[in-house]
Amino acid sequence: MKKAIFYHAGCPVCVEAESMVAQALDRQQYDLEIIHFAQHPNRVAEAEAAGVKSVPALLLDNQVFHINFGASMADVKGAS
Amino acid sequence: MKKAIFYHAGCPVCVEAESMVAQALDRQQYDLEIIHFAQHPNRVAEAEAAGVKSVPALLLDNQVFHINFGASMADVKGAS
Repeated sequence: MKKAIFYHAGCPVCVEAESMVAQALDRQQYDLEIIHFAQHPNRVAEAEAAGVKSVPALLLDNQVFHINFGASMADVKGAS
Repeated sequence: MKKAIFYHAGCPVCVEAESMVAQALDRQQYDLEIIHFAQHPNRVAEAEAAGVKSVPALLLDNQVFHINFGASMADVKGAS
């Protein structure tokens, strides 16, 4: 099972992207974890280390994909 | 079967996103079509009408998701 992590910050753009990822991702292949930074501020450093520059972002097997544009990581850190 | 269309313009960012979409999308649910604008310039108007602002973009059931950022539609039109 490969690992998928969806990072978001609760913004409307994020929520729309979350529902897309949750629906469209092949769950036979990927174990999906959803991280809302407001609830898990301790996961910010890990996300940045993985290359996350903005949210929403989807990490598939350690490769980052930024989906649309909700908020920069600077804003995420400023808000927490 | 729901319809998924991935629009791209052949840039490195696009190719990376294409491989992600092709791999991770649940094909039990979505019939995936991949459109390279250089090969199908006649599909640009349809993409713009669907809300595509930049490529690569993924249209899922008529909802647009922009993945990372490769090229604006203005560049795509300028290049063709």
